[in-house]
Amino acid sequence: MTEVEAKKPQESLQDRLAQVVELLQRHRLVEDLTHRQEGPHHDRVEGLVHRQNLTELQRKLDDLHSADVAYILEALPLEDRLTIWQLVKADRDGDILLEVSDAVRETLLADMEDHEILAAAKEMDADELADLASELPRDVVHELMETLDAQQRERVRSALSYEEEQVGALMDFEMVTIREDVSLEVVLRYLRRLKELPGHTDKLFVVDYDGVLKGVLSIKRLLVNDPEKQVAEVMANDPVSFHPDEDAYDAAQAFERYDLISAPVVDKNGKLIGRLTIDEMVDLIREESESEVLNMAGLREEEDIFASVWKSVRNRWAWLAVNLITAFMASRVIGLFEGSIEKLVALAALMPIVAGIGGNSGNQTITMIVRAMALDQVSTGNTSRLIRKELGVALINGLVWGGVIGVVAYGLYDSWSLGVVMTAAMTLNLLLAALMGVLIPMTLMRMGRDPAMGASVMITAVTDSGGFFIFLGLASLFLL
Amino acid sequence: MTEVEAKKPQESLQDRLAQVVELLQRHRLVEDLTHRQEGPHHDRVEGLVHRQNLTELQRKLDDLHSADVAYILEALPLEDRLTIWQLVKADRDGDILLEVSDAVRETLLADMEDHEILAAAKEMDADELADLASELPRDVVHELMETLDAQQRERVRSALSYEEEQVGALMDFEMVTIREDVSLEVVLRYLRRLKELPGHTDKLFVVDYDGVLKGVLSIKRLLVNDPEKQVAEVMANDPVSFHPDEDAYDAAQAFERYDLISAPVVDKNGKLIGRLTIDEMVDLIREESESEVLNMAGLREEEDIFASVWKSVRNRWAWLAVNLITAFMASRVIGLFEGSIEKLVALAALMPIVAGIGGNSGNQTITMIVRAMALDQVSTGNTSRLIRKELGVALINGLVWGGVIGVVAYGLYDSWSLGVVMTAAMTLNLLLAALMGVLIPMTLMRMGRDPAMGASVMITAVTDSGGFFIFLGLASLFLL
Repeated sequence: MTEVEAKKPQESLQDRLAQVVELLQRHRLVEDLTHRQEGPHHDRVEGLVHRQNLTELQRKLDDLHSADVAYILEALPLEDRLTIWQLVKADRDGDILLEVSDAVRETLLADMEDHEILAAAKEMDADELADLASELPRDVVHELMETLDAQQRERVRSALSYEEEQVGALMDFEMVTIREDVSLEVVLRYLRRLKELPGHTDKLFVVDYDGVLKGVLSIKRLLVNDPEKQVAEVMANDPVSFHPDEDAYDAAQAFERYDLISAPVVDKNGKLIGRLTIDEMVDLIREESESEVLNMAGLREEEDIFASVWKSVRNRWAWLAVNLITAFMASRVIGLFEGSIEKLVALAALMPIVAGIGGNSGNQTITMIVRAMALDQVSTGNTSRLIRKELGVALINGLVWGGVIGVVAYGLYDSWSLGVVMTAAMTLNLLLAALMGVLIPMTLMRMGRDPAMGASVMITAVTDSGGFFIFLGLASLFLL
Repeated sequence: MTEVEAKKPQESLQDRLAQVVELLQRHRLVEDLTHRQEGPHHDRVEGLVHRQNLTELQRKLDDLHSADVAYILEALPLEDRLTIWQLVKADRDGDILLEVSDAVRETLLADMEDHEILAAAKEMDADELADLASELPRDVVHELMETLDAQQRERVRSALSYEEEQVGALMDFEMVTIREDVSLEVVLRYLRRLKELPGHTDKLFVVDYDGVLKGVLSIKRLLVNDPEKQVAEVMANDPVSFHPDEDAYDAAQAFERYDLISAPVVDKNGKLIGRLTIDEMVDLIREESESEVLNMAGLREEEDIFASVWKSVRNRWAWLAVNLITAFMASRVIGLFEGSIEKLVALAALMPIVAGIGGNSGNQTITMIVRAMALDQVSTGNTSRLIRKELGVALINGLVWGGVIGVVAYGLYDSWSLGVVMTAAMTLNLLLAALMGVLIPMTLMRMGRDPAMGASVMITAVTDSGGFFIFLGLASLFLL
């Protein structure tokens, strides 16, 4: 990929988007008119206006950075998105495909001919190809591999051999390597001969003749040190490095912690095989946080906001089905106490309060724990301490808010015993919510699952069924 | 701040944490013993072991990068955290304070004497001081400002004059500036004289005699171009730059989009006044995603996972109170239909299913929308299109899952009309959930509020009250 210096648009990106949308609307309007009035005269005039609009749109798009075009494509409904996609210069296809989200990329690829995809892919580096390969038609991948030289093909294969969440799948191969027994002057001359340096080059990798990493020479040190000095004198000997089978998210956290811009990836013999850069890590950090949010709400994956209704239904149905089962269970719990409700109908009105507050409080706890787990601050070893703390919080909230609602219940139904049962049920359900709010993510983690996965649905299931059971059970025991 | 090359620990960070915890436990055990057995002989032996433990702990800590010590402090309960904090070398206090989260920093500062804080703060740069100032005792800030030279004082004041979420509050002042009419050779010599370059220096800032930004010279270009060339020939003329009063999160998105490492901040006359770096932006991206998760769950701010029970109660009570009111409203809705429930107690058992599925589905919608808003993909202009899509999803889910639960209700209570009412109520409540799932965040955004704020509590309120009303209302009309 050629590199373009990012230029700040005079207007904000949102303004640009608004302009594109306006031009698109004008374009559609003209199209509609052309369809309705089919006279030969009209046709010509409209055709002219039509073409003017498209030319203006095209000019706007050509001015924009690939990342900005990607942003605009993301923010447009499918039909408009494809109109814009057709207008983008073919030679930028590859760049833009790499910038958009998976969901949007799928819609763009579906609109491309094989030969267009092939042309776009030919501009890409091995690591970028590997990113894309899983989404391309099998024939295209095959044909593509044949056009690559042996080293490139090997690199694509290697990148494809790692799981999506491993360092090996995210590393690139654009390392600048030097030897330790040369002077900085020689290094400076060597760099000048390269004509261009890869993006995010903040350090050079010092390797021996077998390709084993000996250290890194930061560009900063290269610049401030005496050019007569040897690389070995100036380089850092034990830099942060990663293995290709390490968890990529751990690497991202290391980047964040140590403020890294690039870092070497070495195999188990210490041989340099690639590098990680901060831009990939930033994307990963964002994706992780997003999938946490989505998982908690029971959404399976990133959903393009303008995805078709069918696609959205498929993305959401699984956890809705789980929720249906848990809701049905809660309903059966109530079913057990139908006799009590018949005798005291106030119970039916009060029971959702107990369940609802429990759900809210449990969600707060589970959100806290899942977040701390994502930051590695919580291990299963802390379980009992966290449970004690959350139980403490729940006890206070239960007595205070349970007390308030108990008084309200007394006021409404003129029964102090109903008020006491309400307070007791609320306190007990909050304690249950606290306990499960810690135990659910801890258990998921112990099982090697994502602790956020459907956490919200699960905690609500517990606090609903539990809340109904506690409240109606206490009421049946003490009030009837 | 002096800069340390990050070294990769042989063991993982979690291993280190485990070791520290083990040493701490041994330390506590010895302490307990010493307290119990007060003989003079024991005292001496235990004292020795005690000191050995602490020395080992101290050695471990000295080996660790400040960011790693910060991580360990975050992951420990208060008592252990303060023990470790006492052991950390005083000259690293400042570094570590800057690395920990706000909540944890508060606990550490509370444990420090004024003179210790002052000593730590003296090592800091102007922008770091400004970050910390709001959390320091007023006297300390005052005393601190007096020790600064005029330029530093001015910088701290300037940084403090911006809101936390503005670019001006996040910029630092470590720019390396050059003139455009010198050769690259001169620049290289100049850098060598500086002896050290600030962290994240990937570009030099080209300014005129008035300090107005003329362009940037990337280090990469400096390295690969002929040293005889003039800066003006090689520099980029219109780099991405920011204004101090811009929204910092917009800047972070620009960093992400254009893969920036550093960028100049200029005032309205184009004068260079500071720079932004990727490390600050990464922190911001993480904080934003986190506050989105927390806000949706109705947690006011970042909560230290080991915070005291009282602190946690305060963090969580506000939205619980809101939830109490909304739950009470839902209860009153049921109260309206007590007569119907008395006649057909099955309604009490079935109504939470309608409310629960609505809540789950509404939460899915609102999560999607809030996320798209955070990425600027959704504006209030898209409202009607999004509503149509979400209504479509809701209609399908309602008919399918509502149909399933309708059949189940028929099976349980042997009443096909109850089944039909169930299906209808579920479909209507899902449509309501979809509508409000779009409208709630859109309205919050229009009002200039955070669209995630308490979104979950609000949507649940609507789907609970609405679900009960729709189901009990339909049942009263058609079944009784």
